[in-house]
Amino acid sequence: MPILVMKFGGTSVANIDRIHRAAKRVAVEVAKGYDVIVIVSAMSGETNKLVGFVNETSPLYDAREYDAVVASGENVTAGLMALRLQEMDIPARSWQGWQVPINTTSAHSSARFVSIPRDNIDQKFREGFKVAVVAGFQGVSEEGRITTLGRGGSDTTAVAFAAAFDAERCDIYTDVDGVYTTDPRICDKARKLDKIAFEEMLELASLGAKVLQTRSVELAMRYKVKLRVLSSFEEPSDEAGTLVCDEEDIVESKAVSGVAYSRDEAKMTLISVADRPGIAAAIFGPLADAGVNVDMIVQNISEDGRTDMTFSCPIDQVLRAEKAMNEAKTKGDINFSELVKDDGVCKVSVVGIGMRSHAGVAAQMFKALRDENINIKVISTSEIKISVLIDRKYMELAVQALHDTFGLDKAA
Amino acid sequence: MPILVMKFGGTSVANIDRIHRAAKRVAVEVAKGYDVIVIVSAMSGETNKLVGFVNETSPLYDAREYDAVVASGENVTAGLMALRLQEMDIPARSWQGWQVPINTTSAHSSARFVSIPRDNIDQKFREGFKVAVVAGFQGVSEEGRITTLGRGGSDTTAVAFAAAFDAERCDIYTDVDGVYTTDPRICDKARKLDKIAFEEMLELASLGAKVLQTRSVELAMRYKVKLRVLSSFEEPSDEAGTLVCDEEDIVESKAVSGVAYSRDEAKMTLISVADRPGIAAAIFGPLADAGVNVDMIVQNISEDGRTDMTFSCPIDQVLRAEKAMNEAKTKGDINFSELVKDDGVCKVSVVGIGMRSHAGVAAQMFKALRDENINIKVISTSEIKISVLIDRKYMELAVQALHDTFGLDKAA
Repeated sequence: MPILVMKFGGTSVANIDRIHRAAKRVAVEVAKGYDVIVIVSAMSGETNKLVGFVNETSPLYDAREYDAVVASGENVTAGLMALRLQEMDIPARSWQGWQVPINTTSAHSSARFVSIPRDNIDQKFREGFKVAVVAGFQGVSEEGRITTLGRGGSDTTAVAFAAAFDAERCDIYTDVDGVYTTDPRICDKARKLDKIAFEEMLELASLGAKVLQTRSVELAMRYKVKLRVLSSFEEPSDEAGTLVCDEEDIVESKAVSGVAYSRDEAKMTLISVADRPGIAAAIFGPLADAGVNVDMIVQNISEDGRTDMTFSCPIDQVLRAEKAMNEAKTKGDINFSELVKDDGVCKVSVVGIGMRSHAGVAAQMFKALRDENINIKVISTSEIKISVLIDRKYMELAVQALHDTFGLDKAA
Repeated sequence: MPILVMKFGGTSVANIDRIHRAAKRVAVEVAKGYDVIVIVSAMSGETNKLVGFVNETSPLYDAREYDAVVASGENVTAGLMALRLQEMDIPARSWQGWQVPINTTSAHSSARFVSIPRDNIDQKFREGFKVAVVAGFQGVSEEGRITTLGRGGSDTTAVAFAAAFDAERCDIYTDVDGVYTTDPRICDKARKLDKIAFEEMLELASLGAKVLQTRSVELAMRYKVKLRVLSSFEEPSDEAGTLVCDEEDIVESKAVSGVAYSRDEAKMTLISVADRPGIAAAIFGPLADAGVNVDMIVQNISEDGRTDMTFSCPIDQVLRAEKAMNEAKTKGDINFSELVKDDGVCKVSVVGIGMRSHAGVAAQMFKALRDENINIKVISTSEIKISVLIDRKYMELAVQALHDTFGLDKAA
């Protein structure tokens, strides 16, 4: 039998009614002849409740106990989903992480998969079971302790099972109906994409589109798992949602597939830094040690052996970054005349694998921003992405202008 | 190190504050030099919530999935208790049933212990852990599925661990401060007992005293585990609560230790049954098949080859019993002229190992009831118990009269 993986997030199993609705989706796929592996999250709100219990009990908690407590939410949903499917005469059973077993590292609360042996679940499929309902987000360490993968880990569980079981597809049911060209809340012309390449999805995911967890997309890309994102609140159809797939599966593509943004960015510039070998390491080493997530980095041309170094980071890490830089200066590791902060910026990016074959994307982007009188403060590019830092007040305007100029409201 | 088992019921771990309070009790015992095994129930209300989810999802549920869902409540408490103990600098870790492992039969929702190997927990004690926090009420089957022991099973888990680990004592922390001579809610002279024999406790437990689950007392009696029942809401002391122990550990005892009652009983009489060999089997076989829990049975003397057969059962099983009897009559398996029901009765019992050596206990009981003009409808006796069925309206009066006549308000 071909295998299909279906993952239901917290809002899709938030109560018994929604679990019933999700079970009906599963029944549709079983009727098509699939053996289905269902991955479930905890009922929405449950994980937060359990995390709250842990924090209240022990502020500096032992991650092993944290994991044991927090993973219980998924176990409840898995059992209830199996029961509901049985009620519909579909042979189903629940699987907790240790029962599969989902072997992970011992890095509690951020564990990574080591192996997912197929034997136990395959055996049950052979015995006539049609659905394996697996608790997402969890696994078991070599020491036999319960581990979790970190928030959003159920997406990653789903992709890992799709890879391990050679699934035909991995359907991620969530509360949005797919991946959009940009955030519909700030651009009413935003359009749902039928397909998007893994690389594009990765850029969009890390740029703040909350649809899929970054790690799950990385894993899907590595193992070439076809991922589909779709809403559990709409009528099912084969064309529903957005397919995240290999670049080759996208026949024709525009230069740009989507516009992403990140609202709360800050820009910091070290003025007049000595331009010598190792200076970048001397600056960004202490920032990394201080837990600052540096994003864009720009170094000006050198003049008289000195240069300006600009970088961006999330706005809530500015104080930490400033402290780290001043300490490094005090210790004599780096030297600068001034530290200029700008915490009123945002990042807007255009993303598209089509950039590789379309020339002039950057020029078109900059022209569209100029036409709106938006000043660009920092530019950074990758093979399939161009990002700019601009004043935060222009964010929505910029997203709309870029969405228009690249014709994202029309299908390719 | 000597080992102590401490069990905390649902009300004793109902919220984070109460878990803190319970952890302090554990700390007191650790300070005395014990290695402690703590058995925890789910936070009160949690198990009912989970059972509600299951019933809503699937009225005729699969007991394996029911167990997987319902056992999660104890896992949460176990993790939180371990975290709280760590916070107090006591090396502790949580254990779920499958991690110990607590091996049980596959009779889901009413599983029985097969074995509790000491190795894993002993190893941790050797490594310096002082407390093993074990999720009560659950185990794991040979097939690797989660099992539960049925409601109240955490008491049984506690006793089983005390037996497996040769514990010095098993302390059951609950919301009452011990075992009473009778229910304090209906007799204000009721007095807490310092000690009670296993056999007495068994009779009291099965007669409706909700303090300890019957199976846990049976198990404690078989393995000679010293059980102490005490309140988690009072200051701890070595004299707190009631010790349930071997008969030999009770130096002097009265004829009667306690008065128990069961409110919702019904009495049924089959009039003019043919008195022939096998007639009892012909009556009580169908009743057992119909799920009727027959309690007292009385057969009148035979006259002209016919007799009257009276039995009692819980009031909510009367219709089932009636149906079973009428069907057996229709099939010709039994014959009776009339079926007389009385669903307005209750059972009152006096219990005491001292009855074995004190004569005249029954006579004293019947006299006390007569003095209150209470008519006795059925009498049944065992070696350490005398039970009577009386009209329900006299229940409180009877309990108080018996409590007085046997001097239970005074210590032995």
